[in-house]
Amino acid sequence: MERIRLPVLRRVAICGGTHGNEMTGVYLVPELERQQKEKGDAARIIPLTFVVSNPRAVKECKRYIEKDLNRCFTSATLSSPITDETPYEVQRAQELNSLLGPKGSEDAVEIICDLHNTTANMGLTIISYSHKNWICLHIFKHLKDKITNVPVRLVLLNIPLSEAYSLESVSKYGISLEVGPQPQGVVRADIFNIMKQGVDAILDWTETFNSGKVIEGGEIEAYLIQKSMDYPRNPKTGKPSAAVHPQLQDQDYCLLQRGDPVFLTFSGETLSYEEEEPLHPLFINEAAYYEKGIAFHLAHKKTLSIPSIQAETD
Amino acid sequence: MERIRLPVLRRVAICGGTHGNEMTGVYLVPELERQQKEKGDAARIIPLTFVVSNPRAVKECKRYIEKDLNRCFTSATLSSPITDETPYEVQRAQELNSLLGPKGSEDAVEIICDLHNTTANMGLTIISYSHKNWICLHIFKHLKDKITNVPVRLVLLNIPLSEAYSLESVSKYGISLEVGPQPQGVVRADIFNIMKQGVDAILDWTETFNSGKVIEGGEIEAYLIQKSMDYPRNPKTGKPSAAVHPQLQDQDYCLLQRGDPVFLTFSGETLSYEEEEPLHPLFINEAAYYEKGIAFHLAHKKTLSIPSIQAETD
Repeated sequence: MERIRLPVLRRVAICGGTHGNEMTGVYLVPELERQQKEKGDAARIIPLTFVVSNPRAVKECKRYIEKDLNRCFTSATLSSPITDETPYEVQRAQELNSLLGPKGSEDAVEIICDLHNTTANMGLTIISYSHKNWICLHIFKHLKDKITNVPVRLVLLNIPLSEAYSLESVSKYGISLEVGPQPQGVVRADIFNIMKQGVDAILDWTETFNSGKVIEGGEIEAYLIQKSMDYPRNPKTGKPSAAVHPQLQDQDYCLLQRGDPVFLTFSGETLSYEEEEPLHPLFINEAAYYEKGIAFHLAHKKTLSIPSIQAETD
Repeated sequence: MERIRLPVLRRVAICGGTHGNEMTGVYLVPELERQQKEKGDAARIIPLTFVVSNPRAVKECKRYIEKDLNRCFTSATLSSPITDETPYEVQRAQELNSLLGPKGSEDAVEIICDLHNTTANMGLTIISYSHKNWICLHIFKHLKDKITNVPVRLVLLNIPLSEAYSLESVSKYGISLEVGPQPQGVVRADIFNIMKQGVDAILDWTETFNSGKVIEGGEIEAYLIQKSMDYPRNPKTGKPSAAVHPQLQDQDYCLLQRGDPVFLTFSGETLSYEEEEPLHPLFINEAAYYEKGIAFHLAHKKTLSIPSIQAETD
């Protein structure tokens, strides 16, 4: 396979508190900023920007104030006119787009690394757009090699840039780090340490890349989301009438086969997986997804070949 | 030890949603009510009242709207005058006191069984007031004998009735059931099933008691809360500067000895337990306690002897 030359990385942003009750980023971003100041400017070659994305939601320890900020970064929302009725998060998305973008432009930061938590047993999951984003795919490969105390996995969203809705899509090579399980409003030291390992490894990789060293390609596995499953719901109240089955709870990334138990109704009945095709469930029983009508996503697993890359240092 | 005669139990209330984001009770109370209706009135000898305590907080999936409802049941708050500025939860507490109390009166229901969740690894914990409340202590003994798939423990609060602040203190023999770990806003089938086992066992016990059968006494172990520990905090921001140490996280009810690790600062430093006296930590890293300045409570373990009891059926 050919070797691909790519421009050096000029700027990286580390963002936390995009969801105000996902506490690892809320605590890690200020800590990384403090450590950076302590070490002085010489410590990192690539300038870092630290951002608390939704400070009002962080203060109230809520996911968001009026609207999920991490669904506000489509081109349409970023260019919508601001009026007195515009939700806080739409205004904040436009501010962040000015600071870190503009999205899709040459001026946008190269990497936004956005720190999230999930109540699901997802280990360390890298979420990224497009399966030809070599920088993101190489970063995943590096994390997978370096971090062995927790499963490291890659989820790819195949959405055109203009429709990509999350904060990291403002940058050229956006990466969302999801670490779980962690309850909303709680900071666990084990989850904090995994996230810190992840961010440190990403920053180390960017410096290796910028040094001009050839970074070898290879094969990686990615999960591609196919569909979402909602909870069975009471037709009168609209509320869930079942929970995720105990045999499926915490089994994110397993392979569901037809007939496997997926839900247990509150009256004790087991409901089975009825899809023809075996698929991998993820974000199982994520707290924030009840209101979105998602009990879990279902994904294909696919092997991708990625080329060797090298920074254009000359 | 003597045998104590006590009046029969005339009414039992099962309450959920006292905290609107503790989902087991939110789903279990309507399910129990539905099952009760299905079986018809003959199914249970003791009339049951089912209550969703804080319906507004349940609707918003928040712990509370203006004030923690489960701190509003002191005699002072229950008798405070209602004005336009009175928080919703104080009004609701007075409504619930009319429905299930009045607290401290002969008319109060015998048992309020209030269903709670915690993000801490507390298994099934019974919380009750006073170590001479024989009904509550016998119910705990029964649960401990019947439920073997999860640890069952008793926490006793030694607070005079008028100062007792939680919903179950409105009844003559109040019991709070805490099951965890479960994130806020999430319903886990395993936790749901443990809570249902607990409630079913309590209701079975009340019918055995009311039948007039002698219920043998014995010895039980109880945890008595001595003090609370807050997170180390940044003196400038007031925010936690450390998380619970990974070696302590999820170890509720262990015995902490001087020198044991309790916190890990975000910069990586371990802080140790410095109390002279070994104590048992509980509610470790409960999400709702960050705002209350509590990282965990510390308790003594004590063995209590309880007498045989028998209902005054004649």
